[in-house]
Amino acid sequence: MKVLVVGSMAYDSVETWAGKADRALGGSATYFSLASSLFTPTEVVAVVGEDFRDSDLERLRAHDVGLTGVQQVAGETFRWGGRYSRYFETRETLFTELNVFSSFDPEVPAELRDAEVVFLANIHPRLQLSVLEQVTAPKFVALDTMNFWISGELNHLKAVLAKVDLLLLNDEEAFGLSGSGNMIQAAAAIRDMGPKAVVIKRGEHGAWLFTEDSAGLVPAVPLPEVIDPTGAGDTFAGGFIGYLARRGRFDTESMREAMVSGTLAASYCVEDFSVDRLETVTLADLQTRHATLQQVVGTLDANF
Amino acid sequence: MKVLVVGSMAYDSVETWAGKADRALGGSATYFSLASSLFTPTEVVAVVGEDFRDSDLERLRAHDVGLTGVQQVAGETFRWGGRYSRYFETRETLFTELNVFSSFDPEVPAELRDAEVVFLANIHPRLQLSVLEQVTAPKFVALDTMNFWISGELNHLKAVLAKVDLLLLNDEEAFGLSGSGNMIQAAAAIRDMGPKAVVIKRGEHGAWLFTEDSAGLVPAVPLPEVIDPTGAGDTFAGGFIGYLARRGRFDTESMREAMVSGTLAASYCVEDFSVDRLETVTLADLQTRHATLQQVVGTLDANF
Repeated sequence: MKVLVVGSMAYDSVETWAGKADRALGGSATYFSLASSLFTPTEVVAVVGEDFRDSDLERLRAHDVGLTGVQQVAGETFRWGGRYSRYFETRETLFTELNVFSSFDPEVPAELRDAEVVFLANIHPRLQLSVLEQVTAPKFVALDTMNFWISGELNHLKAVLAKVDLLLLNDEEAFGLSGSGNMIQAAAAIRDMGPKAVVIKRGEHGAWLFTEDSAGLVPAVPLPEVIDPTGAGDTFAGGFIGYLARRGRFDTESMREAMVSGTLAASYCVEDFSVDRLETVTLADLQTRHATLQQVVGTLDANF
Repeated sequence: MKVLVVGSMAYDSVETWAGKADRALGGSATYFSLASSLFTPTEVVAVVGEDFRDSDLERLRAHDVGLTGVQQVAGETFRWGGRYSRYFETRETLFTELNVFSSFDPEVPAELRDAEVVFLANIHPRLQLSVLEQVTAPKFVALDTMNFWISGELNHLKAVLAKVDLLLLNDEEAFGLSGSGNMIQAAAAIRDMGPKAVVIKRGEHGAWLFTEDSAGLVPAVPLPEVIDPTGAGDTFAGGFIGYLARRGRFDTESMREAMVSGTLAASYCVEDFSVDRLETVTLADLQTRHATLQQVVGTLDANF
């Protein structure tokens, strides 16, 4: 099944212990589509400015990412700058320049409106809703969001939540949205808002999938060194949704497999700045690291 | 194999969202021995004051915990008071009264000096060393510690570390002791200090076992509600060490099973104040929850 993602394409300036990347390719739709396209045809709806480099569009095309829905308009591309502490305990935003993103009005090209799987990356919930109204009959819709919308646009967010199958968010966001600091309580409260499934991302601690009848953890791959965690969440989503779309089934078992796929994709994303490692990842890489991940947990055997 | 634990027996006053427990039975040796004795004969070396209730000694005896090494001396029992935030994000220490614990000089009774498995709970590393000098030929020695000794008594701590097989500590302590905020780097640095194995406890995120050739995670059992997390770390240690001693082998595979045992024991500890839930746990309980834990992670299957 074809995947349609709406989100940002951006130029990021990032500082970590390992160095700096300036005006490096980033954005939720970028990370997402590079991961998703490992598994299935992926189409992007986004906006970029006049300064957006052809060579960066080429990097996406090299992965067969569809760019029909990417508008290039007058003005500058969305820019974000951030600095992480040594071990990524904290992140400081240095600047956010919305630029052409501030007047983004996502338009789904006619030939993409029959998309079967849709990922609404973290943008204003009003825009997420607008995209949903343009696609004709999606089989599976997943949503990301952030604290900014949870605290500032809760009504709009709840309107979208009522219409999606899956919400992916991190633990702080889940606690903020649900009003509970207990993960199980939070997932139950969020499922009551509409989505049948909730994925709660916990960074290096892994990610949890909650459905009607199950709560499942996929641990993160333990890494001896992280270079830049920017985009890991969107890469997780891309590995998850792309896998699910290729499989073409949306039951709990398939989603648990998709969690593994998202986890492995994200583990490569953080090994370099920007998409520098992610864009060279192959399915063979995922296979290799899959074995590592399974060994980390093993069988959890014991005899009582 | 018989287990010997040296640590504290205490009266705790604890406040959580669920209520208060005042002068409730606590202490590292208490939690540890109640869990360890589920698996193997367990002997305690500790000190209590005149105010220590016979009924509390009775609760340990009911679990066949050996109390020959418990000295009852003039003065009051060690007391600790603390208050947790709603979802246990933070803990505030309200008071610490060392009382008889301040002059604790652990003496291992002659008949216990042949203990094969020794757990040195979180006390001054000088006292931990003194206990080690009294036991004749232990097959396996495990150690707990805390930031207070890491920052204040590092030389003494390093002297003990050189003589033990396993160090159990939480992630903050591991980062403090190693100087690295990356768990894999931290574990490697700590193993260089002596212990062949390191267990890093991460609370609700589970616990990791690092040995020469492996890094393994056992997730915590997800609970819809925690009542009081006091003692969970010592209960984990008790479930771990008791299991290992019963098995009588100390290889990586046995330790990974022991991690599961410790995890399950701790999951009961937090379901009530003090040892109120822990003291009624049976091996059948552990068995039941073991199945839950295995389902949480499942097989991590996926096809690439």
